Parts: sequence; structure tokens; C-alpha cells
Amino acid sequence: MFDILFKNACIVTMNDSEPVIESGYLGVTGKKISYIGKAAPNDKGKREIDCKGNILMPGLINAHTHTAMTLLRGVADDYTLNEWLFNHIFPIEAKLDSRATAIGFTLGVAEMLSYGVTSINDMYFFQNDIIRIAADIGIRGYFSNGIVALSPDYDFYKDRSIRETLEMLEYDLPDRVKPQLSIHSERTSEPYVWDMAVEFAQKHNITMHIHLSETLSDHTECIKKHGKTPAEVLSEHGVFSVPTVAAHCVHVSESDMDIMAKYNVTAVHNPVSNLKLASGIADVVAMQRHGVNVALGTDGVCSNNSHDLFEEIKLSALLAKNKHSDPSLFTAYDALKLATVNGAKSQGNYGVTGQLIEGYEADIIMLDTQKVQNQPVHNPISSLVYTVTGKDCVLTMVQGKILYENGEFMTIDIEKALREMKEYALPLIMG
Amino acid sequence: MFDILFKNACIVTMNDSEPVIESGYLGVTGKKISYIGKAAPNDKGKREIDCKGNILMPGLINAHTHTAMTLLRGVADDYTLNEWLFNHIFPIEAKLDSRATAIGFTLGVAEMLSYGVTSINDMYFFQNDIIRIAADIGIRGYFSNGIVALSPDYDFYKDRSIRETLEMLEYDLPDRVKPQLSIHSERTSEPYVWDMAVEFAQKHNITMHIHLSETLSDHTECIKKHGKTPAEVLSEHGVFSVPTVAAHCVHVSESDMDIMAKYNVTAVHNPVSNLKLASGIADVVAMQRHGVNVALGTDGVCSNNSHDLFEEIKLSALLAKNKHSDPSLFTAYDALKLATVNGAKSQGNYGVTGQLIEGYEADIIMLDTQKVQNQPVHNPISSLVYTVTGKDCVLTMVQGKILYENGEFMTIDIEKALREMKEYALPLIMG
Repeated sequence: MFDILFKNACIVTMNDSEPVIESGYLGVTGKKISYIGKAAPNDKGKREIDCKGNILMPGLINAHTHTAMTLLRGVADDYTLNEWLFNHIFPIEAKLDSRATAIGFTLGVAEMLSYGVTSINDMYFFQNDIIRIAADIGIRGYFSNGIVALSPDYDFYKDRSIRETLEMLEYDLPDRVKPQLSIHSERTSEPYVWDMAVEFAQKHNITMHIHLSETLSDHTECIKKHGKTPAEVLSEHGVFSVPTVAAHCVHVSESDMDIMAKYNVTAVHNPVSNLKLASGIADVVAMQRHGVNVALGTDGVCSNNSHDLFEEIKLSALLAKNKHSDPSLFTAYDALKLATVNGAKSQGNYGVTGQLIEGYEADIIMLDTQKVQNQPVHNPISSLVYTVTGKDCVLTMVQGKILYENGEFMTIDIEKALREMKEYALPLIMG
Repeated sequence: MFDILFKNACIVTMNDSEPVIESGYLGVTGKKISYIGKAAPNDKGKREIDCKGNILMPGLINAHTHTAMTLLRGVADDYTLNEWLFNHIFPIEAKLDSRATAIGFTLGVAEMLSYGVTSINDMYFFQNDIIRIAADIGIRGYFSNGIVALSPDYDFYKDRSIRETLEMLEYDLPDRVKPQLSIHSERTSEPYVWDMAVEFAQKHNITMHIHLSETLSDHTECIKKHGKTPAEVLSEHGVFSVPTVAAHCVHVSESDMDIMAKYNVTAVHNPVSNLKLASGIADVVAMQRHGVNVALGTDGVCSNNSHDLFEEIKLSALLAKNKHSDPSLFTAYDALKLATVNGAKSQGNYGVTGQLIEGYEADIIMLDTQKVQNQPVHNPISSLVYTVTGKDCVLTMVQGKILYENGEFMTIDIEKALREMKEYALPLIMG
């Protein structure tokens, strides 16, 4: 007996050997996919869900985000990067406390679950509290607070980021949520801090999350200061010897790509954020040709202003085609891989999530492709990339547990979160 | 007594003197807006709609589309332009008949209405039949069938496009639907055809719809053939003396922009389609600096694959910022104008539609900004451009008549259209 049996589903497996099962069955037992195929299985399900021809696919992985920034959605648009950060975002963020951050995180995770995101790499504040909320809600993810070490009397072990990470390491957490270490970026710390961070990460066996060559000045100022690119100088200090997720990578050089490929660094493409802040367009095609694993992220909602990863999927295909003046380049399937199998690789979960294969963990979403706005569907992969959006997601499951279905959240009290946003969080940060 | 009174609405008027009324009332009488303001009016409404803080705004104008191509959604992606057109699209389109086209049009209009589009500039086939369907459904728009005159024995008055236009001119149609003449593009006809088209348009007092410098080869091949750019040679033949909507304009030169501004030619920006076919990114900022009216379109669904104009609004802002490496350029408000007031200008409807102002026709849409995915709303204009999508539209009104509300279509039998798509149209074109 399956816990859940999906019937009459168009299954987009993201398994290269059979990417699409036009009409099939998918059984879930406990946390795992226990059956997948065209033929009806012998067993029944405790619950059987008729998909009515809708698409099942792996849950999306948002490989770079700052979830709790949801509170700041639309608070400051259309400014230059420095004015945006220093005059708007930082002053507001300085007022955040743990409770407001938790409210913002809860709202952001709700949005993402409703859009089919099942796992995140989250970099923000108060992660020692946030990770417990994530554990309770049921989403998968890595949690870090980026090290910013600009003060001359910086003390690594007094750094809030390190203290939060140490606290997270003490917790008894489910295997799907994990602390991560984060060096915010090359330009916000000195090499001795990276050396300590590498030692810390290795000692505690945790992975790394960093912003890399996001803007042209990030890249060129580093060359001025260190005589080397950020990727070069970070790799020389052993940072990439720790499994690393590097966000943005808009201005990495071809030799940086070789370094990233050598050390299995994942580049996270954030096309909406990079366009909105006019940072440029990362060359996903070149990165992949150099062997770099490329995943996809929304970045914080404040520079987006949405957590809809389907928008990033479509845009990644459109921008890659246009950048190389070739519409046949970077197909729909290539784009869909960024947010699924490549996202899983960014989390060390290749073989565990990111594809629908028997024995894999059941991180699954269902998209309504039967509605008039999405019809006809000549090709399911095309539909998912170029037509469907997060708002077509009707079911989100993580490790076999349904967290969202048809507008309802199973583990989040949305009315309460919205009320607390209005009564507590917004007055605190905007007052 | 109003026919409809909207209460408790955040009204985005797109009227520069007061773009946003944070909480107000909007009354509709007959086809027109008869009240708008912060204060409650003295009159009641036959129907009163509590907007619950949601946003009312002008209906969107999709200034360049091929609506019935909805049938071909996702039928051929990721091909080079010539392979796409000649090996995939044209052979399928050759099989279309009037009935299948009508089914595709009906589905495409349903999608657009549900996404908040109230008016279209539509270029496709069987427009003599399509325009009557548009009249019945209640959408606003211009309808043309592009002249393609490549045959050596081309006969203007035997051209299907001209015959369809003449037939439309015979009809007794509501004032919101109008025939238009269309020269498909410079490269698909000879100057003597343009001369005849200009004479025809002037004689019948109709406007013009054309593709202009969409691809680099459209532009450079014309220079090779005529020694002039498409805009130069067309304007010299008097084409722009007819009010003209020019789609794409990706490769127009700065002097072309001056010509377009001089003749009040509207450029229609189609960012998704231009990226997907790798045609390039039109320079909206430069066009506006030269005084060109820039509107927005989805193009056909086959090169998109969606009719969500909100996606184009967001992308127009993102691409303009990145193209000019300045995130403060081309604000959210600038982007929203493309799809509203500038779209109205493209249809000769400035002062009639595209803004919410007393006395204007009531083409109005409502967006649900209260749902968790769109919260918080720090700035309504930002919300509409960067967060909201067509799927947040909950009400669409044209000339005071509600055509779509909360998933229901008032003038379209969707089940029938989907059934006829499956039973008639798809077997015909894919068989």
C-alpha cells in the first residue's frame, strides 16, 4: 500500500533516459518515491490523487535566496545599487529582530511552497531561529548568515554569523535542514577571515555559500586589491575546497569558470535580480561548456520582486539564446535542469532529489496545465518552461509530505503570519 | 445611480497628475467612468463591488499579437528563426481554416481577458470572421491580415488580406472593433504594393500595422536592396502618413527613430519574443528619448509562449535598466505606461482609454494584491510591475461591461472552445 498514489499524471522525470512519461503513475511510501511508471502498480494508495493529465515534476530548488526579505518587497525599486543598499535596504534591515525576520521568512516560504519550491539555499539573519521554523514547516534547505568582516577589530568567534552557525550545529534537526557557512563575498572580508572560515567549515563538515563577481566592480576592485579575480583569490585560500554555492557569477572570467569546474563550485544564476540591478547577464552557456554546475535562484524578493522560480527558468532560456544570438541554444530542457537536477547537485543531493526516480526522496510538485491559459500542451517540457508559472502549482510535497495543496498550506498559519506582518513586522522596520 | 460602483479600491489611474489613489471609489455608468475619487460619491451603484484594498487600473493593451496562434503554443521551440518559420509554423498555418482559427482566437482572447488585456492589435488570418467574434466577445481591438506579396503575379485586389479588409469594412461593427490594414513587413513586398496599400488605407480611412526591423537581417537586407533602412524606405513611400503601429523595432537606427517620432509611428516592444527568437533587445529608452511612442505586445503565443502582458511589462523595465547599466533608468511607472497610456495612443485612443479618468471609457481591471504571494505592498506601482502577473487579475471590464470575473468568462463558452480545440482544430493542423 502506497501512502499516496498519483494517477493519470504527465510525469516529467528530469531523468535523461526517459524525461517524460506522458501518462503514468507515481507512488510515494514514507519519504520516498516507491513506484513510477506507465503501467498501474499492483498496490493501491491510502490516498489516491487523480492528476487529470496535469504535470508532476521534481520540486524546484531555489539555490540562492534571502527569504525573509519578503518583508521588503517593493520597498525600494529603481535605485542604483549603492543608493539601494546603503540608503534603503541596510537601514531597514538594521531594525529587524528575530520575530520580524521569522514572520518575513514564513511569508516567503509560503510564497515559495505555493510556487513549487521545495528546497532553498537561504542566506540571511537570525538563522539560528529561522532553521527551526524551516524544520517545522517542512521545507528542505541550507541556512547561513553571511560573514561581513569590515571592522578593524573583527573577531571571528564573536561574529553573529559564526555564533548563529554554532548554535544551529547544536540542534537536533531533521536531515533536510542544515546549517551552512557563508562568507558574504570577497569584498566584505579579508583573506585571514577566509582562512578561519575554511578551517571552521572543515572542522564542522559544513558547506559554503558566497556571492561571487556579482557586479563588474566586485570583480575589478578585487583584481586591483589582490591582483587576482575573486574566484582566483578565494580558491587560493582554500575556500573552494569546501563544497561551495556561488551566487550570481555575472562577471567571472573563462579561467574562473575552469577553477569553478575543477572544484565543483555551483554557480547560481539569478537573472531577474541581475537585470533589475543592472549587474549584467551571467553567461550560463559558457559556464556549462567549462563544466560548471549552474543552478538557479530568485535572490531576495527585494531585487526581484517575486519568488517565482518558473520566471527565472523561462528567463534563463530567453537570455542565453539572445546572448549568443542563437534561438536553438539552451533548450527548454536545459533551462529546466537548472532548477531541478542542478539545484540538487548544489545541495549535495544528486541521486536524492531533483529528479523523479524510484528510490529518490519524494520532493514533488503538480502543475495545472489543463486550464485554458495553458492549453494546448504540445510539449510538456515547453509548457513548464515557457508557459507555466508558479501560480499554476497546485500541490507541493517535500519528503513525501504535502505542504501545499490548492491554495491551502498544511503547516503554515497564513492568516496569523499576515496579521503579524501588519501588526508587528512592518511597523518595526518602516517606523 | 451608477451601473457599477467599486469601493475600497487602490486606484492606479496612470494619470500623471495623481497616479495613485490609495483608497477610493470608482463609478461606471454605461460605457464610461462617471466618478473617481477618494471620497464616497453621493450616488449608490446598482452593483457595488468591495475591492478589499485590491488594485484597479486601466485594462492592458496588447499592441502586437497574432491571437489565434494560441493553437500552436509550444508546437516548435528552440529552433532558429528560418527553421521555425518555414519548417514548422508555415506548414501548420497552411492547414488552418476559418473555424480552427476562430477556436484559436477564442482561446487566446479568453487567456488575455483573464490576464487583464482589454484591447489588442491583432494580425492574423480569416480576420473577416475573427472581427465578428471579437465584436461578440466584447474585447476592443484592431484586426488585420498582413500583406505578403512575394509572387511575381501578385494582384493587390485579389490578395486575401485586402479582400478580408474590404469585407470587414462592409460590416456594421461596434466602435471598439475596427479593421486595420497590414503590410506584413518591408521584406515581404515591393514598393508598388506599399503605394497601393497607402492609397487603400487613405481611401478607407484605416490605420496600418507592420513588422519593422525585427531581425538584424530584416534591417541589413533592406539596406542592401533599397540603399535605405526599412523605416526610411517605407516612410518615403508614404506608409507612415497613415497612422502606423510598427512591431518589434529591434534594429531601428537613431535616425529611424527620428522618422518614427516625426510621423507618430508607435513602436511595439515585444521583449519575450525578441529574446526567444534571439532577435535582440529593442532600445526602448533611446526610442523614447527620440520622442517615439512605445507600446507593448506579446507577439504570437508561439514565440512566447504566453499572452501575459504583465510579464512583458516587468521584462521591459529589467531589460532597459540592464541595457543601459543603470537600475534607476526606466522606472516601474515608465514600464506600466507602455501597456496602458502608450497602448491607447497606438490605437488613437489617447483621452479615451489607457487611463482611469472621469469621462474616459471604462476599460478597467482588478488585481488581487492581498494574497500572500503579493504581500506586503509597499508601493502599488512597484507591485503591478515587479510582482503581480496576469494570473492575479480577478476582474476585466471593457466599455463598462464585465467580461471576466474570478475565473468565469461572461461571453465565452470555454468548455466548448476547449472541446472544439481537441476535436476539430488540433487534429486539423497537427494531422
